[in-house]
Amino acid sequence: MTPKSPQESYTIMNELVLPNDTNTLNNLMGGRLLHWMDIAAAISAQKHCNRIVVTASVDNVSFKRSIKLGDVVSIEAVVTRAFNTSVEVRMDVWAQNIPSNTKEKSNEAYYTFVALDNDGNTVKVPELIPETEDQKSLYDGALRRRQLRLILGGKMNPDDATELKALFFAERQ
Amino acid sequence: MTPKSPQESYTIMNELVLPNDTNTLNNLMGGRLLHWMDIAAAISAQKHCNRIVVTASVDNVSFKRSIKLGDVVSIEAVVTRAFNTSVEVRMDVWAQNIPSNTKEKSNEAYYTFVALDNDGNTVKVPELIPETEDQKSLYDGALRRRQLRLILGGKMNPDDATELKALFFAERQ
Amino acid sequence: MTPKSPQESYTIMNELVLPNDTNTLNNLMGGRLLHWMDIAAAISAQKHCNRIVVTASVDNVSFKRSIKLGDVVSIEAVVTRAFNTSVEVRMDVWAQNIPSNTKEKSNEAYYTFVALDNDGNTVKVPELIPETEDQKSLYDGALRRRQLRLILGGKMNPDDATELKALFFAERQ
Amino acid sequence: MTPKSPQESYTIMNELVLPNDTNTLNNLMGGRLLHWMDIAAAISAQKHCNRIVVTASVDNVSFKRSIKLGDVVSIEAVVTRAFNTSVEVRMDVWAQNIPSNTKEKSNEAYYTFVALDNDGNTVKVPELIPETEDQKSLYDGALRRRQLRLILGGKMNPDDATELKALFFAERQ
Amino acid sequence: MTPKSPQESYTIMNELVLPNDTNTLNNLMGGRLLHWMDIAAAISAQKHCNRIVVTASVDNVSFKRSIKLGDVVSIEAVVTRAFNTSVEVRMDVWAQNIPSNTKEKSNEAYYTFVALDNDGNTVKVPELIPETEDQKSLYDGALRRRQLRLILGGKMNPDDATELKALFFAERQ
Amino acid sequence: MTPKSPQESYTIMNELVLPNDTNTLNNLMGGRLLHWMDIAAAISAQKHCNRIVVTASVDNVSFKRSIKLGDVVSIEAVVTRAFNTSVEVRMDVWAQNIPSNTKEKSNEAYYTFVALDNDGNTVKVPELIPETEDQKSLYDGALRRRQLRLILGGKMNPDDATELKALFFAERQ
Repeated sequence: MTPKSPQESYTIMNELVLPNDTNTLNNLMGGRLLHWMDIAAAISAQKHCNRIVVTASVDNVSFKRSIKLGDVVSIEAVVTRAFNTSVEVRMDVWAQNIPSNTKEKSNEAYYTFVALDNDGNTVKVPELIPETEDQKSLYDGALRRRQLRLILGGKMNPDDATELKALFFAERQ
Repeated sequence: MTPKSPQESYTIMNELVLPNDTNTLNNLMGGRLLHWMDIAAAISAQKHCNRIVVTASVDNVSFKRSIKLGDVVSIEAVVTRAFNTSVEVRMDVWAQNIPSNTKEKSNEAYYTFVALDNDGNTVKVPELIPETEDQKSLYDGALRRRQLRLILGGKMNPDDATELKALFFAERQ
Repeated sequence: MTPKSPQESYTIMNELVLPNDTNTLNNLMGGRLLHWMDIAAAISAQKHCNRIVVTASVDNVSFKRSIKLGDVVSIEAVVTRAFNTSVEVRMDVWAQNIPSNTKEKSNEAYYTFVALDNDGNTVKVPELIPETEDQKSLYDGALRRRQLRLILGGKMNPDDATELKALFFAERQ
Repeated sequence: MTPKSPQESYTIMNELVLPNDTNTLNNLMGGRLLHWMDIAAAISAQKHCNRIVVTASVDNVSFKRSIKLGDVVSIEAVVTRAFNTSVEVRMDVWAQNIPSNTKEKSNEAYYTFVALDNDGNTVKVPELIPETEDQKSLYDGALRRRQLRLILGGKMNPDDATELKALFFAERQ
Repeated sequence: MTPKSPQESYTIMNELVLPNDTNTLNNLMGGRLLHWMDIAAAISAQKHCNRIVVTASVDNVSFKRSIKLGDVVSIEAVVTRAFNTSVEVRMDVWAQNIPSNTKEKSNEAYYTFVALDNDGNTVKVPELIPETEDQKSLYDGALRRRQLRLILGGKMNPDDATELKALFFAERQ
Repeated sequence: MTPKSPQESYTIMNELVLPNDTNTLNNLMGGRLLHWMDIAAAISAQKHCNRIVVTASVDNVSFKRSIKLGDVVSIEAVVTRAFNTSVEVRMDVWAQNIPSNTKEKSNEAYYTFVALDNDGNTVKVPELIPETEDQKSLYDGALRRRQLRLILGGKMNPDDATELKALFFAERQ
């Protein structure tokens, strides 16, 4: 399988916030945004893998500011690193109020996806080769985030999480 | 404000997996489940706070097995701890295939919510008093999970995360 | 087939009233509630039958008070009696306005479901054994309600509806 | 208020059965049909009352045959009688499979609606004057159905239901 | 195949404008109306062809006035002419505000559909025989509109569009 | 008002084709695509106008090939020309089947939008200054397409449509 660059999975999704997406304060509900992000990230992961993909995990997401009814939510998704049968996708989410010409970062997030064949079995995915400095930094960070996922999922002993320790307790190493 | 027990926020939601909730392998899409979980957790948080609530964050969620078209997703949500103007809600998610009489744990998750008054300002919420051993254990863990959220959100220095270190690197302390 | 108790089919569904569920007075439309009740009752009927079920009939439902945008509708469903290839499900529906801490009974209803195999043929269902006084009372009433359904559906002569007459014209018998 | 004829409220609604409307046997779910019927009947009731209307009750509905994915559901609604602040609407529901050129009666139903002003208070509605024999027969039957609704809702003593007794126990009177 | 009259494909669809169908001014969004019109026209085309049909084209549609939240959109669709494997459907769209008893023409439109067999291949459709003067006029116009579609789609040289020239530049011919 | 370049309104929308978007052959229904295109084009028009916009018209759209369940529909929208209080938006629509790595042009289309202030009155919009050759060609064509819309809407005499004649009957002029 030919390795791919991040650009090949780059995906933009724009969604208009409609009444049913909001709570009684007319703010977008967090769960609806998580749903849209899953679709945007899945399209990005599919572009890298050229396979059906299923969501394996969602990393910690925090919602910093409210998004209003009528705003346009803009989600940019890109694969940051491929593992054996899975990929990590990073998203940057913006909320635009176009009549008042504002655009603010809402949040960032990482979702991971597993690639499947038509019978539902996991399959190997192409490597990702980062090119720019930003892409390399995201590629490196993917290992630490993966260790955190494994620890939180009870599948790795914290003491083995060499990369993660470097993140959390840099001064100790 | 009178403190509350976890039972007062206990909420069950059952949802039937319909075609539009699934991918081309007839599996429930992760984003749709995250959306349902947000609604179930918000109802639970509202019951504790008796206020409008908005999603502040979602902790790492991993999806262990696929849920099929026609399954019933059952979400149990309960407040584990109240902070100043926010609460943490824990969910246990089950997938039932009723004709074949199977029920399997799909995943667990923690969402946090901020309580707002009618003008959208944050307001204090009642304390939560855990009663059973399980409730106390969830209550204690809430502090560690909160520290992890703050570190991942860039709002806390890892060295100050005393509780979290105890979780990750117990033997070192 | 092992008989079952009512508890085995007990189901709770919570739904949040969203803008598209309401009319221009911001009240939940009756048809949307009937739809949710059908899903809740079908899940309950499935739990008793462990089969695919289809709605056979809906008994007279009256809507006593309006339910508002943002309220939580809570539906409790339980099988009251099994007939040869069908079951009757009773529902109690509550509307909660959680910020103002109110919870009011909206209505009660009975739906019946027929159990089908994977080819769509009707199949026998397990017996239901009522245990408490309330369950026994619902079990007994199911026969009268069934007679009323048959008469209204033109499948029974009113004179043969012994149980129903006892309900309507007790003093005459 | 000028009295109206049934034709003035006559309403046809056609809906295409889509995947999300069906169960795992590809049959239209009963609750979805009840939802469509509520909208069709409300449009008909609005035409008679020229007011906002809300669903007051649904009479016993039985579903005689399954309706399939891709079928067209055709609902004909008409007001049968006006009471003080409410109307009764009768519906005839057909399922058409157009490629195979079949059209079968699915069911009949009666819904009642209350008319409201813009503040949500009940208001008087115009009289309905039946014209054809069929319309007169529906008009007469409306009184019996109303008595049955009142008895089932606990608001009328069966012994006072003169009209209803004539229906059920004709030979006794 | 027996030819058919326009009446055999006559279809009425009524839809209630709900919050999610509207923009932040509470006006029905054009795209939602185009969607409803496609379903109404497809039902009409199916009735003529007794086949599965797929949308081939939409002619120029202009929206003359806004339609409000809570209005009832009424779409009347009828086949105007059959070509070899396709039909043209004309629609008249009305917006009714029933509480205020107004009904205004919103727009007219022409959609074309191709008939398919179960393997997705195009199939011949029955002829349409217009009967009234109006139907004959629509039948004649269908040829001109078809020429315009072909020119706009780059499939016909404007000089060959004899019928269309007669429409646009009558005085020149 | 500062004039704008086409890039400032450039918008990409990606949508996943779900079961409810398809007919019984699993092909995307045309009306659903028209609906998505309306939202994508409205976002683009809003970016140019920084105003609420409403759909004024849709030009002739023809659907050349079927789009399948599970495909990703990618819509690129850009403003081609501003008139006094309205803009024309061009869209290019692609269907991607990502697992099989195909991407095909589905269709092109032009929608026009009118800009409104918060009271719903039309307002002037900024000029558009085309920069590349392609943008200039779309800008010039916009005048011809506008004349065709006016003629088809009965608001212009074909003889006055100087630009349009140049399109249709170039050799004659």
